[in-house]
Amino acid sequence: MSKLYKIAIIGFGNVGQGLTKILSDKYVLLNERFGVDIRIVAVCDLYKGSVADPDGLDPKMLLSSIELAGDLKNLNTKYTGWNAKEMIANSGADILVELAYTDLKTGEPALSHVKQALNNGMHVSMTNKGPVALAFPELRDIAKQNNVQIGIEGTVMSGTPSLNLGNEMLLAAGITKIQGVLNGTTNYILGEMEAGLDYQIALTQAQELGYAEADPTGDVDGHDAAAKIVILGNLFMDLALTLSDVDCTGISHISTGDVAKASLQNKHWKLIGTVAKAETGFTASVKPEMVSKNHPLASISGATNAITYSTELLGDITLIGPGAGRLETGYAVIEDILAIHKSSKAI
Amino acid sequence: MSKLYKIAIIGFGNVGQGLTKILSDKYVLLNERFGVDIRIVAVCDLYKGSVADPDGLDPKMLLSSIELAGDLKNLNTKYTGWNAKEMIANSGADILVELAYTDLKTGEPALSHVKQALNNGMHVSMTNKGPVALAFPELRDIAKQNNVQIGIEGTVMSGTPSLNLGNEMLLAAGITKIQGVLNGTTNYILGEMEAGLDYQIALTQAQELGYAEADPTGDVDGHDAAAKIVILGNLFMDLALTLSDVDCTGISHISTGDVAKASLQNKHWKLIGTVAKAETGFTASVKPEMVSKNHPLASISGATNAITYSTELLGDITLIGPGAGRLETGYAVIEDILAIHKSSKAI
Repeated sequence: MSKLYKIAIIGFGNVGQGLTKILSDKYVLLNERFGVDIRIVAVCDLYKGSVADPDGLDPKMLLSSIELAGDLKNLNTKYTGWNAKEMIANSGADILVELAYTDLKTGEPALSHVKQALNNGMHVSMTNKGPVALAFPELRDIAKQNNVQIGIEGTVMSGTPSLNLGNEMLLAAGITKIQGVLNGTTNYILGEMEAGLDYQIALTQAQELGYAEADPTGDVDGHDAAAKIVILGNLFMDLALTLSDVDCTGISHISTGDVAKASLQNKHWKLIGTVAKAETGFTASVKPEMVSKNHPLASISGATNAITYSTELLGDITLIGPGAGRLETGYAVIEDILAIHKSSKAI
Repeated sequence: MSKLYKIAIIGFGNVGQGLTKILSDKYVLLNERFGVDIRIVAVCDLYKGSVADPDGLDPKMLLSSIELAGDLKNLNTKYTGWNAKEMIANSGADILVELAYTDLKTGEPALSHVKQALNNGMHVSMTNKGPVALAFPELRDIAKQNNVQIGIEGTVMSGTPSLNLGNEMLLAAGITKIQGVLNGTTNYILGEMEAGLDYQIALTQAQELGYAEADPTGDVDGHDAAAKIVILGNLFMDLALTLSDVDCTGISHISTGDVAKASLQNKHWKLIGTVAKAETGFTASVKPEMVSKNHPLASISGATNAITYSTELLGDITLIGPGAGRLETGYAVIEDILAIHKSSKAI
């Protein structure tokens, strides 16, 4: 017997659509093999419209509406027009899936939505780094009080199970340091510079390919990677880091001369994020570093990301996988729901 | 409140001692953070002796006896002298930890011990590849009938959580191919040949360092890696592979000339194990392959192992970590026990 999970989605961009496609394509597998019957009961997007039906919305219908009309506004569903707050209050969902844009300054409006859902007794799965980087310890407390779970696998390396790996399998081995190539845009730009482009041309190319935003500062200044370092430190090292604790340097000052110099020394520039236990306290940084070609992070190229956990009992464990993508990040929500399912069986 | 798990150990070599050291050093952490109170109630080793006490044996006492006397024979415990069968029947343990030597021809005597324990209602954790490569589907059925778990994390890449990663996190992403550098001895020898040694000298050096056995055929002929391919295919691809299904070629025919030729092409020789879904059925092989230097498995050197899962939804996910070691393999048993704990909470 499968267990029914009703989900309500905020944000129906690439990730929401990727998740919907997975739920459509893998419905039978998820039911039969994993015992979860996941139904979308509400979707709310600031621009594309808002639809809901407590009996479930057909994923294929949602996707074809986007494909044909570019939005959800002409769908004939039981309820329409709810804003996010109304949807959380009224949809009857068991799980809020928060996929809206990331604001690393306030975390809003996602932060309020997540709190509302947790206090409403809903589990939350989110790929949105903002609330997690800014307020994870607080959110974890609220979740605990309400006896619900927060899944955040998609906030670091999309659906590559980097957080689950740390949480479920490495924590008992004693994690002393975490280091990673955690931002695909900067990794792509540094790779293209190695191939001969200068910084501005490589950045423009990344923007044209859709890797970098129109305003690329969050990526190139290292803030996106710094948010991930905050998340990792707080999850695995019992720290209470905020963004200002991360010593952060971006890649915009790296010149073609710097890149050539590294090549001569048989090295690569990588934007490396690090959080480590120190004799007193911790160190946390994001900065471009020259790594030698046999370093496990040296061969990580383009949109691929990697994370190395240094542990007392196992030494270094490195996980390499996609850092972004429509299906890849959508799958992170599936992993969160499967983890919620496992732990709710335990109650 | 911690849950008590009484464990009985067969085989008290490096791995058993490593496990015992972890249980001693991390007792408080495992209790407080993970809710498991793991006590050794019996140890049975063909050469070192057999001791038991249903109230628990002091891990420090076991280790110091090995250090001082080389065996357990002078310890004054409640019961002594049990053989493995007697221990399984009488120790009162919840979990049998099977760490004896691997026999890939019959799997015995471990196979009989594991069956006896499962039929006795005990969970099993084993790092011994023999029974798993030869009879995992059968053992899984017996475990299911008796409502107990089998943990086998340590059979592939020691405590690097390669099997848990596949099982818990990647199975729902659709695993289509698994490829890995799964044997440290051959990887070490090929690396030393690249550094200029010839095969025989590199092998002798591996034996002197304790990487290779006195009889190294299991490693250099690829049978150890083939056993791991059988385990991976059966676990993650719904196959019922046996060792004879794996097209297996070892490394002993690789010459220094072959190695030099690869270097000229900017490539490395690696002993690669592969299992993949094919249009009809599957392909399974272990063979030396030349991989280009930017291949994710190219930089894996020495005793480090790596595995790449190719998936429908996430593309390639690679995990790199230790392939052997005293504490590293001992930790695999801890991971198995934590997984047993999680799933038994669910009952």
